Amino acid sequence: MEKRVHNFNPGPATLPLPVLKEIKENFLNFRGSGMSIVEISHRSTLFEEVINDAVDRTRRLLGLDDNYHVVFIQGSASLQFCMIPMNLALPGSPVNYINTGTWSTKAIKEAQIQGKDVKVIATSEDKNFSYIPYDYKVDNQASYLHFTSNNTIKGTQWHQFPDGQGVPLISDMSSDFMSRPFDVKPFGLIYAGAQKNIGPSGIAMVIIRDDMLKRTPDNLPTMLKYTTFIDNKSLVNTPPTFAIYVIDLVLKWLEETTGGLKEMERINKEKASLIYEVIDNSEIYQGTTEVKSRSMMNLTFRVGDEELEGRFLVEAVENGLIGLKGHRSVGGCRASLYNAVTMESVKSLVKFMREFEEKL
Amino acid sequence: MEKRVHNFNPGPATLPLPVLKEIKENFLNFRGSGMSIVEISHRSTLFEEVINDAVDRTRRLLGLDDNYHVVFIQGSASLQFCMIPMNLALPGSPVNYINTGTWSTKAIKEAQIQGKDVKVIATSEDKNFSYIPYDYKVDNQASYLHFTSNNTIKGTQWHQFPDGQGVPLISDMSSDFMSRPFDVKPFGLIYAGAQKNIGPSGIAMVIIRDDMLKRTPDNLPTMLKYTTFIDNKSLVNTPPTFAIYVIDLVLKWLEETTGGLKEMERINKEKASLIYEVIDNSEIYQGTTEVKSRSMMNLTFRVGDEELEGRFLVEAVENGLIGLKGHRSVGGCRASLYNAVTMESVKSLVKFMREFEEKL
Repeated sequence: MEKRVHNFNPGPATLPLPVLKEIKENFLNFRGSGMSIVEISHRSTLFEEVINDAVDRTRRLLGLDDNYHVVFIQGSASLQFCMIPMNLALPGSPVNYINTGTWSTKAIKEAQIQGKDVKVIATSEDKNFSYIPYDYKVDNQASYLHFTSNNTIKGTQWHQFPDGQGVPLISDMSSDFMSRPFDVKPFGLIYAGAQKNIGPSGIAMVIIRDDMLKRTPDNLPTMLKYTTFIDNKSLVNTPPTFAIYVIDLVLKWLEETTGGLKEMERINKEKASLIYEVIDNSEIYQGTTEVKSRSMMNLTFRVGDEELEGRFLVEAVENGLIGLKGHRSVGGCRASLYNAVTMESVKSLVKFMREFEEKL
Repeated sequence: MEKRVHNFNPGPATLPLPVLKEIKENFLNFRGSGMSIVEISHRSTLFEEVINDAVDRTRRLLGLDDNYHVVFIQGSASLQFCMIPMNLALPGSPVNYINTGTWSTKAIKEAQIQGKDVKVIATSEDKNFSYIPYDYKVDNQASYLHFTSNNTIKGTQWHQFPDGQGVPLISDMSSDFMSRPFDVKPFGLIYAGAQKNIGPSGIAMVIIRDDMLKRTPDNLPTMLKYTTFIDNKSLVNTPPTFAIYVIDLVLKWLEETTGGLKEMERINKEKASLIYEVIDNSEIYQGTTEVKSRSMMNLTFRVGDEELEGRFLVEAVENGLIGLKGHRSVGGCRASLYNAVTMESVKSLVKFMREFEEKL
């Protein structure tokens, strides 16, 4: 067996080991074709099976009705920040955003650059984005209400999604997509960069409700129109075939090995609670967010003073625990516990955290 | 040894076997990190080495001066069709295009959608794009002159690049990038989707001359501004790390194993000439382009009547020769002989073509 570390990277992040093994095993000869997955045509039957399977699994996992489209778009979530207002802001109607951190802020900025009538109806900026603001009022004329379901950098998560009060919800779910079941119906659009819970970097999955598509103006650039991707089933040009292949394998693992989103959520809750239990019963570890807003996916904490925290991070790496440094914009520590992070990795981190404190 | 076919796909296309083997070999443990290349952080030293190496190799292979920037952008060449006029069309100045086929036509359409003053100064549409039009006059006030260096679908190639007559050249080099040396100086921007000569699908390499950047308007969406990618060294958000890793390996193979672009061109010419020799001395194979415009990369031909052509394609596949069917929009046959297509594959195709004709 190859050496494997315990990988708590925030994204690109660890992927299920059986998936990685399958990719490796078949890398020179995909399904007996005599070609690598990276060498086959995106218009071949072989690849069509892959992309259709990925879409079908997404539909089953999320329980999507026929009025939802599933497409893959390059540019990651960041390109969606501009495509959303470009396609979905109705003329003369405000767009509503809730600001819960770095990525929400970026999404808001892109709507502002386009001169849209942006209304930020709630923000947790007053306390450095350490909580989810549940107090807000949606404009009943708004084109949509945008929020970030999980805040990778700040370590908070919406445990109950906002109520759109009749306005379609749009959510950047990059860092908790497919980590738990939820009711899709209030959503006009959901998007997620793949590199956290469902695959490698370089692609976003976008789920769009059919009625939203009527809004797309005709004169947009072809590659920035949602309708282009839907009309061509994500094959308007050559898509990132490798990334879609890996996503399909991860979704297969999620559906068949893990048993779906309900079971995944149970496991994710258990993983997170093991770490939060250490934090809550410690003299040195301190969570950085409000307890009721804290994330199951990205667990942010501090370790005593700067010096102690530095030692913690160095010793973690020495113990094969990788990716625990907080985002460069906030510092501190962060354990990202995405779907593919195993219970074994979590228990290794728990053990390390306990022993680190005990020996002080 | 695994079964391998002779892969003449137009893109995604075959990659050098030593590169594929290296990816497979290291897939579970990249450079001793205990993580797969798809699991490491794009901000890690490990990945920085990869992307910097890919950029440095590009600089050496093309002989780029310091006034050229090399960046990676998602969205493939198709997104560049809209980014180019958005960033580089000067107010009140026309943009010049030469139309040599499907991809040029798409590039022109995207400039028109944005309401730019598009002047198509030459086109070979009169003869179904079967030749390169060398007769044109550039507007001396033009923002740029755009052309497609090699026409993947129509099978033509610029063997001598157009003379910009003082206007910066912009070229879509997706299907012959890194297949031959050329003088970069007249170019304001060069772009190439990776999935033909340099890597897997899902990324474009863009090379921009520094003076072009002054043109970029401030109010563009962040992810559609060239300056964003240059200021952040392609790491504004999470880039397609796997694709960049593969590109780096392919460029290493090109530089160290093949010996650079001059040697690559010699080999590519030899490969193409072997196939054209069969076509030129045949009663059944017929080239579809003017001889002096024909491509070294995508060799298009017909085989007798529809029935015979159908048999040719079926028997080719039976003989392990894959991807010879022409683009669905034009029909016929096409052999794509990108850098990674081996002489052995070409000789197998020559043998098959000869034997197919002889036994008639």
